[in-house]
Amino acid sequence: HRNRAASSVRLPRRSSAFTVRAEGGINPDVRKDEQKVVDSVVVSELAKPLTAYCRCWRSGTFPLCDGSHVKHNKATGDNVGPLLVKK
Amino acid sequence: HRNRAASSVRLPRRSSAFTVRAEGGINPDVRKDEQKVVDSVVVSELAKPLTAYCRCWRSGTFPLCDGSHVKHNKATGDNVGPLLVKK
Ligand code: FES
Ligand code: FES
Repeated sequence: HRNRAASSVRLPRRSSAFTVRAEGGINPDVRKDEQKVVDSVVVSELAKPLTAYCRCWRSGTFPLCDGSHVKHNKATGDNVGPLLVKK
Repeated sequence: HRNRAASSVRLPRRSSAFTVRAEGGINPDVRKDEQKVVDSVVVSELAKPLTAYCRCWRSGTFPLCDGSHVKHNKATGDNVGPLLVKK
């Protein structure tokens, strides 16, 4: 990971076994070394006719959706799902 | 809103002034009448060279990003941001 905040603030080293989750936060674990997680899709570079992008912040292949929203929804009663990008 | 669950389960009428949030859920208010909120972008129909899609579930223009992630991140210490789709 590249630490974007390194020049201004020294962030504590994170342990993968211990994640502090702020009250009301929605991203428990994705790239917490980045101040804001923004991803870009360049449409002309898409390989497949349909690509699913994660909006639940639980995917093991973030920013892609790997189906983890199903477990999250079941565990919490939530109703989130991916954004489908179609060529 | 179209109630997709109407044929099987009668959902309680929701008041906009009172939102029940499941423990650990990340979507407080977007289309809670839908069992799973999935959106599609058809790339050939994109109007602008860059479109930002919300992943914080707080946008007033969901599925588009309206900048609400800034307030969410500030309030909670979270670090979420949009998916940028570029033509
Ligand atoms: S895994 Fe996150 S939306 Fe599917
Ligand atoms: S308003 Fe939700 S990511 Fe920007």
